[in-house]
Amino acid sequence: MWVRIDTLVDLALEEDAGYGDITSQSIFPLAHLSQAQVLAREDMVVCGLEIARRVFCRVDSAVKVELQTSDGNHAVEGSTLLLAEGPTISLLTAERTALNFLQRLSGIASVAHQFAAAAKATGTGVRVVDTRKTTPGWRALNHRSSLGEHVLIKENHILAAGSIAEAVQRTRAQAPHCAKIEVEAESLDDVRQAVAAGAEIIMLDNMSPSLVQQAVALIDGAAIVEISGGICLDSFADYAMAGVDVISVGALTHSAPAADLSMIIAARSGS
Amino acid sequence: MWVRIDTLVDLALEEDAGYGDITSQSIFPLAHLSQAQVLAREDMVVCGLEIARRVFCRVDSAVKVELQTSDGNHAVEGSTLLLAEGPTISLLTAERTALNFLQRLSGIASVAHQFAAAAKATGTGVRVVDTRKTTPGWRALNHRSSLGEHVLIKENHILAAGSIAEAVQRTRAQAPHCAKIEVEAESLDDVRQAVAAGAEIIMLDNMSPSLVQQAVALIDGAAIVEISGGICLDSFADYAMAGVDVISVGALTHSAPAADLSMIIAARSGS
Amino acid sequence: MWVRIDTLVDLALEEDAGYGDITSQSIFPLAHLSQAQVLAREDMVVCGLEIARRVFCRVDSAVKVELQTSDGNHAVEGSTLLLAEGPTISLLTAERTALNFLQRLSGIASVAHQFAAAAKATGTGVRVVDTRKTTPGWRALNHRSSLGEHVLIKENHILAAGSIAEAVQRTRAQAPHCAKIEVEAESLDDVRQAVAAGAEIIMLDNMSPSLVQQAVALIDGAAIVEISGGICLDSFADYAMAGVDVISVGALTHSAPAADLSMIIAARSGS
Amino acid sequence: MWVRIDTLVDLALEEDAGYGDITSQSIFPLAHLSQAQVLAREDMVVCGLEIARRVFCRVDSAVKVELQTSDGNHAVEGSTLLLAEGPTISLLTAERTALNFLQRLSGIASVAHQFAAAAKATGTGVRVVDTRKTTPGWRALNHRSSLGEHVLIKENHILAAGSIAEAVQRTRAQAPHCAKIEVEAESLDDVRQAVAAGAEIIMLDNMSPSLVQQAVALIDGAAIVEISGGICLDSFADYAMAGVDVISVGALTHSAPAADLSMIIAARSGS
Amino acid sequence: MWVRIDTLVDLALEEDAGYGDITSQSIFPLAHLSQAQVLAREDMVVCGLEIARRVFCRVDSAVKVELQTSDGNHAVEGSTLLLAEGPTISLLTAERTALNFLQRLSGIASVAHQFAAAAKATGTGVRVVDTRKTTPGWRALNHRSSLGEHVLIKENHILAAGSIAEAVQRTRAQAPHCAKIEVEAESLDDVRQAVAAGAEIIMLDNMSPSLVQQAVALIDGAAIVEISGGICLDSFADYAMAGVDVISVGALTHSAPAADLSMIIAARSGS
Amino acid sequence: MWVRIDTLVDLALEEDAGYGDITSQSIFPLAHLSQAQVLAREDMVVCGLEIARRVFCRVDSAVKVELQTSDGNHAVEGSTLLLAEGPTISLLTAERTALNFLQRLSGIASVAHQFAAAAKATGTGVRVVDTRKTTPGWRALNHRSSLGEHVLIKENHILAAGSIAEAVQRTRAQAPHCAKIEVEAESLDDVRQAVAAGAEIIMLDNMSPSLVQQAVALIDGAAIVEISGGICLDSFADYAMAGVDVISVGALTHSAPAADLSMIIAARSGS
Repeated sequence: MWVRIDTLVDLALEEDAGYGDITSQSIFPLAHLSQAQVLAREDMVVCGLEIARRVFCRVDSAVKVELQTSDGNHAVEGSTLLLAEGPTISLLTAERTALNFLQRLSGIASVAHQFAAAAKATGTGVRVVDTRKTTPGWRALNHRSSLGEHVLIKENHILAAGSIAEAVQRTRAQAPHCAKIEVEAESLDDVRQAVAAGAEIIMLDNMSPSLVQQAVALIDGAAIVEISGGICLDSFADYAMAGVDVISVGALTHSAPAADLSMIIAARSGS
Repeated sequence: MWVRIDTLVDLALEEDAGYGDITSQSIFPLAHLSQAQVLAREDMVVCGLEIARRVFCRVDSAVKVELQTSDGNHAVEGSTLLLAEGPTISLLTAERTALNFLQRLSGIASVAHQFAAAAKATGTGVRVVDTRKTTPGWRALNHRSSLGEHVLIKENHILAAGSIAEAVQRTRAQAPHCAKIEVEAESLDDVRQAVAAGAEIIMLDNMSPSLVQQAVALIDGAAIVEISGGICLDSFADYAMAGVDVISVGALTHSAPAADLSMIIAARSGS
Repeated sequence: MWVRIDTLVDLALEEDAGYGDITSQSIFPLAHLSQAQVLAREDMVVCGLEIARRVFCRVDSAVKVELQTSDGNHAVEGSTLLLAEGPTISLLTAERTALNFLQRLSGIASVAHQFAAAAKATGTGVRVVDTRKTTPGWRALNHRSSLGEHVLIKENHILAAGSIAEAVQRTRAQAPHCAKIEVEAESLDDVRQAVAAGAEIIMLDNMSPSLVQQAVALIDGAAIVEISGGICLDSFADYAMAGVDVISVGALTHSAPAADLSMIIAARSGS
Repeated sequence: MWVRIDTLVDLALEEDAGYGDITSQSIFPLAHLSQAQVLAREDMVVCGLEIARRVFCRVDSAVKVELQTSDGNHAVEGSTLLLAEGPTISLLTAERTALNFLQRLSGIASVAHQFAAAAKATGTGVRVVDTRKTTPGWRALNHRSSLGEHVLIKENHILAAGSIAEAVQRTRAQAPHCAKIEVEAESLDDVRQAVAAGAEIIMLDNMSPSLVQQAVALIDGAAIVEISGGICLDSFADYAMAGVDVISVGALTHSAPAADLSMIIAARSGS
Repeated sequence: MWVRIDTLVDLALEEDAGYGDITSQSIFPLAHLSQAQVLAREDMVVCGLEIARRVFCRVDSAVKVELQTSDGNHAVEGSTLLLAEGPTISLLTAERTALNFLQRLSGIASVAHQFAAAAKATGTGVRVVDTRKTTPGWRALNHRSSLGEHVLIKENHILAAGSIAEAVQRTRAQAPHCAKIEVEAESLDDVRQAVAAGAEIIMLDNMSPSLVQQAVALIDGAAIVEISGGICLDSFADYAMAGVDVISVGALTHSAPAADLSMIIAARSGS
Repeated sequence: MWVRIDTLVDLALEEDAGYGDITSQSIFPLAHLSQAQVLAREDMVVCGLEIARRVFCRVDSAVKVELQTSDGNHAVEGSTLLLAEGPTISLLTAERTALNFLQRLSGIASVAHQFAAAAKATGTGVRVVDTRKTTPGWRALNHRSSLGEHVLIKENHILAAGSIAEAVQRTRAQAPHCAKIEVEAESLDDVRQAVAAGAEIIMLDNMSPSLVQQAVALIDGAAIVEISGGICLDSFADYAMAGVDVISVGALTHSAPAADLSMIIAARSGS
């Protein structure tokens, strides 16, 4: 599963340090060794530690990295996430790229955790997922399905096919039998047609909680119910209580603020 | 200048639509033609139109694209940013990737515009720049300098070299003569040393506006003054009025929310 | 959808003609023009024409290609599939690579057509699909789902989880809600457990037609029934009549013989 | 020699498991360890073991692989070819890609062995080679020469040059002096001309054994004699006895059936 | 034949102008158009014009290029080699990379021409070739054979095999039948053994002209005679007159001085 | 900093040995081990040892390499630069590529050292740098700045902007504040204008030593003075004594002759 991630790590290193770090090379001899600590500067859910480890090792296989926690754990402000030891020039060359991955992925994980906690608090078993509105080039880190895997019939498809029934029928004849057919519904009438057409997932797009409630009643277990569009933490519980199975939150990946992290180094005694 | 951007466009398309769009392929015949409009769903400063055009053309060279505005322009809610005409399957295959680029770049541009306007409002001639805290893989879109181009002496370098004077001297002997030497200062004492060492840019790190004012007085034109660290729109004017030349704002690239955009299509008459 | 295919076309051209075609370059002047015809040397179902066109154009954008039929059509021995006109050296440089794609894809398409015809002849509506046993590097041409898209619980998973019920439950909690959960069954007892666990597809592995019939009766519409393992044209009808929904045939991609094709050229009058 | 093979291994893994194996990840904890055996399910000549090893190691460097035999050896049904030990998720993620390489390469090796045995049985010293009709992207595994290395004058070149003599002369003036000049002959007259022109290899295309015999007599040691076109095991001895030096068999690479292999795993005691 | 060259063009552009040309972008508006001329600043044999054209087109497909001469022609000081017209920023962005290819390839071509002229002057029909001592990454531009195509038995191979006879025999059994077997000889005794072993090319390594003459007499037409090692223009005729067939000159690619070229631009009237 | 260099090493190995070394594979068994020495065949300044080490390790990770000196050191004729031990086939496969890197980089380093010694001999503190006239694809090895990093206003920019003053002003408004603005001057009048415009570096293009002296007097410390264009070892001191700060020598990278190196191997006792 690392093949694509290595590609992204190399691309990131190449653009930040492809020609080396001239400041560090001017100041430190090649043989100078240090220990670096990556610290949380605010409370966060940590994500990206394995990737950060690969950044350090890719810059210089002589750098030894020890993770102090694991992806998915909470870290409090001031705690150490990762220790790295090796040539000082290598540690400083890797610093910015490693932090850029960690800050973005931990930022996303921290927002995701808030939504997951909100989901759990409702006691409904509702599931939170992200959308295809991701950062191009970062799919491997977000685990989102692509157009080739996910059968999602949207408004444009329905208009072109003439009806939801026709769109579902054409798709069932062509698409892989291992994918569920999902229909996007803009109205209760769409919902009725989707149920009649045998949709296996119905995505309610940009509906209010009360409209969602009516849709859930119409569907009545005949399909998985997913909602999408502008759901934030404030409105989350209202939607969850309306009886949906899955809530899709674009904010998870496209608008999470970066987490605040830093790296400090100390020369190793004797170096 | 497109070489790296093409790499990113291909990577993004490959991960979203590398194996095609099975839903659209199930519903539309290959010969079905449509016109697509990309619309702003909120007011924004637009960025990424040329990249979006390349996304459509890369999916299918038979798609014709017309930009309705230019990167850097303001767009009001509801306005059309781009028209594309061609095979319906191709338009829908390109949709999500094109929108993902536009929403992220326009989100950054809209925040950048707020800071630029704040800068202009101060009448100080202060310049706003972004930082190296970018999304890995997106350097080509942010135009940020890399470690190989920018000589920036930070706390870790100073500690290792023993003093600011020593760090500047070593760097001057090694680094390209066409790069200005920048020193990061954490205190007024650092500032004094940086001036004495002949630093050409002094970056004041995480200082309050009043401390910045004192630093500017100490530097007194001997170096370009840059500030960095936690500057937001609220505190912007205070910092600008303190007499700095350059304000570095990490939020430009690492935490801007995505702009809201959508694409609608209509079958071309006769198709 | 062409991004990955272009990668494969380039890889193929690079290995066959990365340093050019020294024989043709020795014999023809650069300005010498010809017309080439690609001919079927046996009856076949044609596949790969668009890829062959890209091979010619990638070698030399001055080559003009006209397809004489379309992918999926039958071609009789002796019929012309594609005309190409342009510099003789370019036509000969592209020849082998274009034919290699056409012969392999048309070979697969011809076998696939035999199975599809056999399926149609049964009047059962059974669907024929291929397996993940493909030629590495050729996924884009076979449209097969990957491990990241397809939830398939096999014997090894069941042993490890302790039971089919447990394996299905763990997978349902983790895997994307848009994928159907498929369970591989080696025996009727496995089938019973898979039904009880709520499997959405049950794959009967290497069962005889009569055993398949019993399994179909047990499943009784509660899941899609797929069979896999050693199905050939001779046994196809027996399996299809047993009431399955989907027949997975590895031979489609891993053992189809190459179709027989050739290219002839004629100098263009006046060149 | 591994550079290109690594590219193909990465491409294959990326398309089969670029986003991981969601079923295995749902069922096994990261720390769960197993031992896997790759077994021959029919008699075969084994090929691809080193590549299979690289597939496992590329997925996870923590997997330890032990080959139980070597490329080129015979394996009987039921024998173990390879043992791999490591994280269960990694073993299952690598399984299909490793088997896909092994089944195709062992299938080719098994057919190649039949032809080599047939050659040996004739006692003629005839050599069996494959053709350029390979699977695009797989050249590195087949060791075939490309257009840039091999000087082969075919019918199209002869027509264009006006005569075999002229084609050979132009090629000798331009092509590398370290390559032998090979001429494809369709008739005995072509053979006479090729000998007269000083061809160093003459390829007899699609001739009957008796025609081949006459051609060999005409050439009489003046050039290496190669035959190509539709040679199968049944006709092999007749051709070999006709006195040729080299027999080129396209079937080696383009139509060999996949060998039958499987992988079974067992949890390691204590894991 | 362009596949590898495109890779090199993209690599070169990416490293020189991957992030654009900030000076030109600061000075010219996007719509500003110019015409550029590439001029010879000394007499030279021109090479690389097609590659230069691709550099301009890759930077911006809106640039139109007209070649004023062809690769292989002589150009006198002051003559125009290429005209390009298009956006000024694009012309200036491409300038350095286009000139870097032209200056290096024309430098090599000019030296090659001197040796070719020296060869012709001898009236011996001797052929001049280059060696494998090339610039890594530039093989596609030098058309040199690789280790996979060329069978060259050197001193290290002979020592290991025990004798020239044994080395030739082992190689003949394994290497492609379409490659000639070449043996490197350090002494007349080596030459005798190589002839006895049936070597098809004998490379005389670092021998004086008189020693070469003796070797040629010994070989007496039984093999192609190639010489290599330290041949310069001064000694060229002596070697050629000694009766060799091929002279290998490493200086062609590894030490030719760059040709002197420049580009000037003029704003297009009306822009 | 190795990311780009690895790309170049792989490209070089692929083109020289992508399909292996057929001669060595014909002669040596896989298990045959040797020790190789890389020797200087003339006095030189060594450069490229770390890259050569990577070439050996990339071909075969079983090869162990020991450097006998370091990049930047002098080596006398006959001295050993590098020892490598491992499978004989791997050593011979890596040989040419490793030597090609070493000979070119050591050739450049040796010329660079001559200029550096000439600079030191003048006692002026003048600095020698190279130009952007490099070998495309080799930037990572030359550490030269690209168009995206270096603000250099040349004749074409000045003509277009109307004056040096205007060109400097536009550039200052747009270009990164961390780059110094350099202006190319063709005459003393250009120099005067550049000083007046506030240029931070003035590059005197193709001026005689006496003209340079006048220019230095005019600039009088207001900017760094760089000279470029046709400076050779003979004229070096005259230019250095004229008072310039930086001398840019294109010959460093574009015309340095390759250094003379060789590799010899010996079978390891017992192998």
